[in-house]
Amino acid sequence: MKFKNSKVVIVGAGNVGSTTAYSIINQGLCEEIVLIDVNKEKAYGEALDMQHAIHFMNRNITIHAGDYEECKDADIVIITASAPMPKDSNNRLEMLKPSIQIMKSIVSSVMVSGFSGIFIVVSNPVDIMTYLVWKFSGLPAKQVIGSGTALDTARLCCSLASMYDLDSKSVHTFILGEHGDSEMVAWSSSTIGGKSLTDVMSDNADRTKNETKETLLEQTKAAGWEIFSRKGNTCYGIAASTTAIVKSILFNENRILPVSVLVEGLYGIDRVYLSVPTILNSSGAKETVEIRLLPEEKEELIQSAKVLSSFYEELK
Amino acid sequence: MKFKNSKVVIVGAGNVGSTTAYSIINQGLCEEIVLIDVNKEKAYGEALDMQHAIHFMNRNITIHAGDYEECKDADIVIITASAPMPKDSNNRLEMLKPSIQIMKSIVSSVMVSGFSGIFIVVSNPVDIMTYLVWKFSGLPAKQVIGSGTALDTARLCCSLASMYDLDSKSVHTFILGEHGDSEMVAWSSSTIGGKSLTDVMSDNADRTKNETKETLLEQTKAAGWEIFSRKGNTCYGIAASTTAIVKSILFNENRILPVSVLVEGLYGIDRVYLSVPTILNSSGAKETVEIRLLPEEKEELIQSAKVLSSFYEELK
Amino acid sequence: MKFKNSKVVIVGAGNVGSTTAYSIINQGLCEEIVLIDVNKEKAYGEALDMQHAIHFMNRNITIHAGDYEECKDADIVIITASAPMPKDSNNRLEMLKPSIQIMKSIVSSVMVSGFSGIFIVVSNPVDIMTYLVWKFSGLPAKQVIGSGTALDTARLCCSLASMYDLDSKSVHTFILGEHGDSEMVAWSSSTIGGKSLTDVMSDNADRTKNETKETLLEQTKAAGWEIFSRKGNTCYGIAASTTAIVKSILFNENRILPVSVLVEGLYGIDRVYLSVPTILNSSGAKETVEIRLLPEEKEELIQSAKVLSSFYEELK
Amino acid sequence: MKFKNSKVVIVGAGNVGSTTAYSIINQGLCEEIVLIDVNKEKAYGEALDMQHAIHFMNRNITIHAGDYEECKDADIVIITASAPMPKDSNNRLEMLKPSIQIMKSIVSSVMVSGFSGIFIVVSNPVDIMTYLVWKFSGLPAKQVIGSGTALDTARLCCSLASMYDLDSKSVHTFILGEHGDSEMVAWSSSTIGGKSLTDVMSDNADRTKNETKETLLEQTKAAGWEIFSRKGNTCYGIAASTTAIVKSILFNENRILPVSVLVEGLYGIDRVYLSVPTILNSSGAKETVEIRLLPEEKEELIQSAKVLSSFYEELK
Repeated sequence: MKFKNSKVVIVGAGNVGSTTAYSIINQGLCEEIVLIDVNKEKAYGEALDMQHAIHFMNRNITIHAGDYEECKDADIVIITASAPMPKDSNNRLEMLKPSIQIMKSIVSSVMVSGFSGIFIVVSNPVDIMTYLVWKFSGLPAKQVIGSGTALDTARLCCSLASMYDLDSKSVHTFILGEHGDSEMVAWSSSTIGGKSLTDVMSDNADRTKNETKETLLEQTKAAGWEIFSRKGNTCYGIAASTTAIVKSILFNENRILPVSVLVEGLYGIDRVYLSVPTILNSSGAKETVEIRLLPEEKEELIQSAKVLSSFYEELK
Repeated sequence: MKFKNSKVVIVGAGNVGSTTAYSIINQGLCEEIVLIDVNKEKAYGEALDMQHAIHFMNRNITIHAGDYEECKDADIVIITASAPMPKDSNNRLEMLKPSIQIMKSIVSSVMVSGFSGIFIVVSNPVDIMTYLVWKFSGLPAKQVIGSGTALDTARLCCSLASMYDLDSKSVHTFILGEHGDSEMVAWSSSTIGGKSLTDVMSDNADRTKNETKETLLEQTKAAGWEIFSRKGNTCYGIAASTTAIVKSILFNENRILPVSVLVEGLYGIDRVYLSVPTILNSSGAKETVEIRLLPEEKEELIQSAKVLSSFYEELK
Repeated sequence: MKFKNSKVVIVGAGNVGSTTAYSIINQGLCEEIVLIDVNKEKAYGEALDMQHAIHFMNRNITIHAGDYEECKDADIVIITASAPMPKDSNNRLEMLKPSIQIMKSIVSSVMVSGFSGIFIVVSNPVDIMTYLVWKFSGLPAKQVIGSGTALDTARLCCSLASMYDLDSKSVHTFILGEHGDSEMVAWSSSTIGGKSLTDVMSDNADRTKNETKETLLEQTKAAGWEIFSRKGNTCYGIAASTTAIVKSILFNENRILPVSVLVEGLYGIDRVYLSVPTILNSSGAKETVEIRLLPEEKEELIQSAKVLSSFYEELK
Repeated sequence: MKFKNSKVVIVGAGNVGSTTAYSIINQGLCEEIVLIDVNKEKAYGEALDMQHAIHFMNRNITIHAGDYEECKDADIVIITASAPMPKDSNNRLEMLKPSIQIMKSIVSSVMVSGFSGIFIVVSNPVDIMTYLVWKFSGLPAKQVIGSGTALDTARLCCSLASMYDLDSKSVHTFILGEHGDSEMVAWSSSTIGGKSLTDVMSDNADRTKNETKETLLEQTKAAGWEIFSRKGNTCYGIAASTTAIVKSILFNENRILPVSVLVEGLYGIDRVYLSVPTILNSSGAKETVEIRLLPEEKEELIQSAKVLSSFYEELK
């Protein structure tokens, strides 16, 4: 008898993929990591660099570069790969074509291996790409999850935590909808220390400076660019949020995180991939939570869903 | 140059004190732990047993049995010691006299060492004992904290998490007031996955079985006895909650936990030690959060405060 | 698809069993823990106490009291249960009869469930009990492992580390043979910081005080009693060492630990369960390391094996 | 009272500096991290990216970009910055001039702040740079440490572990001397599972393939280039080894690691910075271990020291 080890395959050994692997290693989350990249030498180099790092970690993990057949017995396949955007187009579909082709090719290769685990899609635009991975793979929707607004939510929590000098984990709020411009915040049910966020903001007006809910959401949306424009990429936040999703699934935690899932019949939305609070365990997206939003909040979310679903039409 | 190590002294090497030390070791929270007990041999035996355990931990920690002079440069002194209750009395003050004497003696010995750190009081009745440690020590109130309802809150989260098959850390609620019969829940601002707990319960009536808010609170209050009656003590829950308080302080986390602090002018309560959500960092109880309770909730909390403050009169 | 969670069953919810469960929880090593005890209420109480503790841990874990059928899909079954020794006998076999009966009954119940995982035996005398579990279970020897001298080795490392003011993890030595009076140290290949232990001791004679290899081994053998006589049991060291074994197996670490395994044809020993350095991974005791001992060391080990094997004859 | 938090300043926010910060965050080692870089925007971007990551970690940590005055109360300053090598020179001193100037400027700025903590130097050539930081800073030698061969040792452990399918942490060996071509292995006292490495290799000739001690050392020396040539930098191994040094110091572990320290009168070497096994605690390089090397091993180490000390002459 030799029981099955937990195995995570990461497709794309760029900044996001490699940093995700390194986060999993530091947190000791699985037995085996496989890096797949079109540039096989790059994947090999990253894996070798990380092997040496594992010597200093609390647990031993195996990491190596590999090929798609490795997906056969993987529990999770994380897709971080993407195509460069063509710069000479204003047409959304036109711009995404190279990425769609890559996604199709990756998913096809993964499925050919006999993979029956859970996809976590990180490639942007993440809601569209997750939808496509679901379509291309033929897997049940609960096994195809996008990293979605987990990172955006963390960014908002950080802004609020910084304003009130708090641990961001004591801020409880959720960003819903598209991971992008149309995302919205479930302000009405957000809390800090069991106190409604709205009350916190009005009771602490002196510390809130000139920030309003609007400026906080704008900051959150701009955070990625703030980082990108200074360092040329973003990797730590997205890797850490993806790793939290991996942990909830591999460790069967039943933790609730805002991730991109197929919303069917909740929030007045039907069959659109976007982020809502979701219970994650070893079956994947076990169940979504339907917050009772205020009417204006619900309207915002439905608009965000429309931004995404309109794209499905173009795809046909 | 040799910078100051972090040091935790635990007074009382019984089940709660020892299990707290072992939790701190497993989680690697400080450089040095000292166990103090009237039974010096017991403290020595527990420390020796744990020294061997540290060999298998991710970080090295020093633990040894010691004396009150060790408190001089301690960051935190945790008091878990207590006196046996005299069984032949119905008078509350009479019953507590032995414990009060012990607390006075401990605090006096600690303060004589030159201690200027933070007390965490675990001994029951914890709100009264914390108040007394504050009085006896002469330290600023923010440096004297009781473990309070951190454990009760965890128990309620566990009941709810079990009902809905969730990670209890995804349940956000707070128990306020006395760690005891008069405690109450801030139901109106409790959430699960960003959804109001009230909505969760009504939307999931099929899974809620016959549980109501009332039965859930009763279960929470009864949990200690459920455990005690089966194993003769309770140690893991209280040790883990105390360790979380230690972590927030030593690691300067600014995390919000419900702990027993001196409430002055908030919630309509004046100078009573009881549990409210509190921001904990290396200065101790940095700040308390005043949830805007419903009128009936606020009344419950004020009643709980009265149960405690009435005792202060008896003490005089 | 729902991949298999890792599951550890602990038989015996006394000090050792419960503390082992609590260590696994603190270190976040598996998805599910089941406590089995003849005193079902005790097991229930311990599990409930620990459920509340998990709320404060870094990962969610499920723990509950259960029955032997739970072993069916367990990865590991840890046996910590034992019978009280009859005090009126000088005959070794006579004294062990109650424990042997208990072991037989436990193993039978576990095997009836369909269990095909790995046994870790902690009950004393551990080498004999491990041998019996192997015999009773009919499992391949690599799937039946005793906690052996993992704890004794840690204790020796701690003594040496304390003498030289070191992290005990930087001391590399192994205690081999019986977990008991006949155990021996592989002194000749022991090192500290890459330096032969013999050289360390002679170069640091001033710090070695009056300790010699003999007194250090005596201290190690006496450590259990030093603890027991002061606190009435030993739990933290044995729980932490057992947890390290669990971690190496569940996490497929291929870490080398001194544990009780069936030695066949190595060290001049044939078919005796005793402790030698062993590579542990998800297949169990993957491989044993045969240190080239000095002749006098080898003789000591063979004598230790004889102490154990002589018992096998009595058993027949 | 507010006790002192632990604080690590990292000079250089490139791949190595940023990955080191991220490792410290994942492992939760201190209260505050400050990134300093000549490119202030880069440091700001990296810090912001990591702030979002901290939301998903087990403990809260503060990270921000800052200036040299932040070093005043730092426990540790890690120097990862370096100058580009001029390509048109064959003269060692000439080539290093830009890096020496940078090191002088950094150390001067750090010392002006009032810094009295511990320097960890990672910039290459690390032994020379560490020597210079010692000279420039005027600090006691035990407070100036180079990352040295901690990484090389890990790489050798990984090669051996891979050959025998082991956890690399069960391989105990040390690379001594220059972090570079003249480094050497203390083969004679290396062990695996308490067994001499020489015996392991001869007993497992079938698994050792064609590897010899010579080829293993060559592989180790080549590993950095193997990685660099494939991914354009090395970051994970060096960050993880540096983080292990940080942990041993901040957590006062007294762990033994091979790091670059001032060797005075040991191994026949006088006042040269090179790597030997060193006990690390909160005082820095507390003590070095003098392994009794074989004569030929000792000669190799002395030659390595000469390579380094010869440079000191050129510097004058």
